[in-house]
Amino acid sequence: MKIIKNPGKKTWESLCKRVTLSENSLQETVQTILNDVKLNKDRALKKYTQLFDGVLLTELEVSKKELEEAQNLVSEELKSAIQLAKNNIEAFHNTQKETPKKITTTKGVTCWRKSVAVEKVGLYIPGGSAPLFSTILMLGVPAKIAGCKEIVLCTPTNKEGKINPAILYTASLVGVTKIFKVGGAQAIGAMAYGTETVPQVYKILGPGNQFVTKAKELIQQQGVAIDMPAGPSEVLVIADETSNPVFVASDLLSQAEHGADSQAILATTSEKVAQNVITELNKQIEELPRKELAKKAIGNSFAVVLNSSEECIQFSNEYAPEHLIIASEKASEYIEGIVNAGSVFLGNYSCESAGDYASGTNHTLPTNGYAKNYSGVSLDSFVKKITFQEVTKEGIENIGEAIELMAEAEGLQAHKNAITVRLKELNG
Amino acid sequence: MKIIKNPGKKTWESLCKRVTLSENSLQETVQTILNDVKLNKDRALKKYTQLFDGVLLTELEVSKKELEEAQNLVSEELKSAIQLAKNNIEAFHNTQKETPKKITTTKGVTCWRKSVAVEKVGLYIPGGSAPLFSTILMLGVPAKIAGCKEIVLCTPTNKEGKINPAILYTASLVGVTKIFKVGGAQAIGAMAYGTETVPQVYKILGPGNQFVTKAKELIQQQGVAIDMPAGPSEVLVIADETSNPVFVASDLLSQAEHGADSQAILATTSEKVAQNVITELNKQIEELPRKELAKKAIGNSFAVVLNSSEECIQFSNEYAPEHLIIASEKASEYIEGIVNAGSVFLGNYSCESAGDYASGTNHTLPTNGYAKNYSGVSLDSFVKKITFQEVTKEGIENIGEAIELMAEAEGLQAHKNAITVRLKELNG
Repeated sequence: MKIIKNPGKKTWESLCKRVTLSENSLQETVQTILNDVKLNKDRALKKYTQLFDGVLLTELEVSKKELEEAQNLVSEELKSAIQLAKNNIEAFHNTQKETPKKITTTKGVTCWRKSVAVEKVGLYIPGGSAPLFSTILMLGVPAKIAGCKEIVLCTPTNKEGKINPAILYTASLVGVTKIFKVGGAQAIGAMAYGTETVPQVYKILGPGNQFVTKAKELIQQQGVAIDMPAGPSEVLVIADETSNPVFVASDLLSQAEHGADSQAILATTSEKVAQNVITELNKQIEELPRKELAKKAIGNSFAVVLNSSEECIQFSNEYAPEHLIIASEKASEYIEGIVNAGSVFLGNYSCESAGDYASGTNHTLPTNGYAKNYSGVSLDSFVKKITFQEVTKEGIENIGEAIELMAEAEGLQAHKNAITVRLKELNG
Repeated sequence: MKIIKNPGKKTWESLCKRVTLSENSLQETVQTILNDVKLNKDRALKKYTQLFDGVLLTELEVSKKELEEAQNLVSEELKSAIQLAKNNIEAFHNTQKETPKKITTTKGVTCWRKSVAVEKVGLYIPGGSAPLFSTILMLGVPAKIAGCKEIVLCTPTNKEGKINPAILYTASLVGVTKIFKVGGAQAIGAMAYGTETVPQVYKILGPGNQFVTKAKELIQQQGVAIDMPAGPSEVLVIADETSNPVFVASDLLSQAEHGADSQAILATTSEKVAQNVITELNKQIEELPRKELAKKAIGNSFAVVLNSSEECIQFSNEYAPEHLIIASEKASEYIEGIVNAGSVFLGNYSCESAGDYASGTNHTLPTNGYAKNYSGVSLDSFVKKITFQEVTKEGIENIGEAIELMAEAEGLQAHKNAITVRLKELNG
């Protein structure tokens, strides 16, 4: 990991740029798959599942029997761990419930808003080497709290047509209504358009590879909502003399193991701290089963030495990290300055893994600098906030004339008239 | 306006479909403009302003002098009306502030979230016949409450290079930081990429024509957030024997005057009510200055007669209207059943105009059926909700083992290790 010493502020923007892959023919490929799924539905899903996942399925939906079997294949210890995580995630997301606050803005004019669940949502869970059952907790728990009626989950199978039992167990636990053995862009198409088997949903959430991400982007343009634009995962750690270099190195590596395009940034005021962390990091990395990936990610990463802790926070705000760890005994002093970040971990014992699994916060967060303009997934992601107003006779008498004037000034006579006919009736 | 009697539920989906225009060469045109603005900045803005708005500008930014002049050109009555509206919008959006709620999910694990303003936002206000200063209130007031530091506004000028004084007055009043005489797709490009004069922003909000809408869609794919996908404006009115046909007709028409592609739907259990409303509507429409537009919109609209008030609500939920007016003395009985709607107007005196201007609710709302999965603009639109967690030594002892188990089951050894090194140090 290279150390960059006191970079001038003019260079910060380019330092903070993420690596972006060129698109090539991705869009075309994904659009073809989406069109095929829209037209040929289940038939297209089975075709692509055979083509990409190498398995010929007769049934796309996971059966009751498969769900029951999964219950027995997950160890009791893991079940307890998942339950602990679920409890914490539930507790935190329950605090995000909004009770309608009625306000009288003018006498006779009452306004409020009410959260109502998005009726049908689709969750995408990638397959591959890591069975991300933790993401099912992060999406399924708030969907259930929100009151979504239909919670569909799509995930690819292995070559034997099987889904990891921890995925099936967790999906049942959180109350997913239907699980389908479909992955990739075809899964996104299935949930966006609906097929004979897969229900159409109004919003699709969850991580995925570049095909899934592109498919989500394309169906968003057709009116299906998505959680947020996606990019590779990242962490920025602010460290000082009170940090533990062993801990900091482990945190940087837990980010780096995600993939070669992950980024792990260290910001500190002390070159010595940076060097100590890097020494530790080089030691720990050799022990990792995913060390090849982690080494590539660390190759794209860097440590930056800055003049003050204020500058560290400024740099972090410019970078806008998905995860921000303040590895310091004085972490609370940093809170006020934080402007752009997905989720923040305060102090030496608040490691990113805690938030990834079990502290209670959501791990579906804005990457790629999107923490400047997007929030992570929360209860808000599963509801619409509908506004209500009740204007009484007295109310229309109080605000009617102002509306008439404004509508007239905007040249909207019929808007004015809707008030005039009411005032006329009242003043007979 | 045609009456459709008791349509079978199978036909509802097609009845609720909005008219969509074919895209043709729109995307290509808009992409060309965006690329040009990205590359040639102010020079491109001036070129397109001359080309599309027919005016050659030397300065793109509205000057202090122009702002001062505008103050004197707006009548005192209109100023008071705008102030009344502003007060109500402020009062309602202030209720949307969220105070951080700290929760201990497990002993030693504290989580909360904090709303932090999107630092730089861009507002687009269309030009054309109607100077939509009311939309400046709807976007500028919550932006200011949120604490956005840079609030940029772009709007096209008339042929004399002037902006309507009510627009300038309102922009000053709400605290817009900079106003630019730029419209169309080029304005969206300017705010997305930044030019020598126009600052780059992180989120762009506001209505516009098909070029503006397409430009917003395209820059969203490049990481700039937008308020929501756009479509023509619409209202659904549920009327019964307690409705006033004169009021209902005026409400349908205040929607219809927006444009030929607007839709105004009447749902009722009584054919007689429908006929009375249509009779009134045909009378009132003749008096409107924008009657040609309104007649086209009414041509695309319909009244639907259904079997029960429950069915009226079900139909409305399927249609998912931007504006839903319950023109009934029993309006409050409907509230529970409402699942999909942007903003709801309860009772005979709650006309849509009230919410369009001055009740306090926001008038930037999801159209085109997007009320199924999107909320209207609110304070939420101008903040990110950053999550925080603080895990103490005790906390990591309480949740550490669960995290280790879960990380291991997901095959993420470095995630596990970040816990292990901490537990080891504690139990050292």
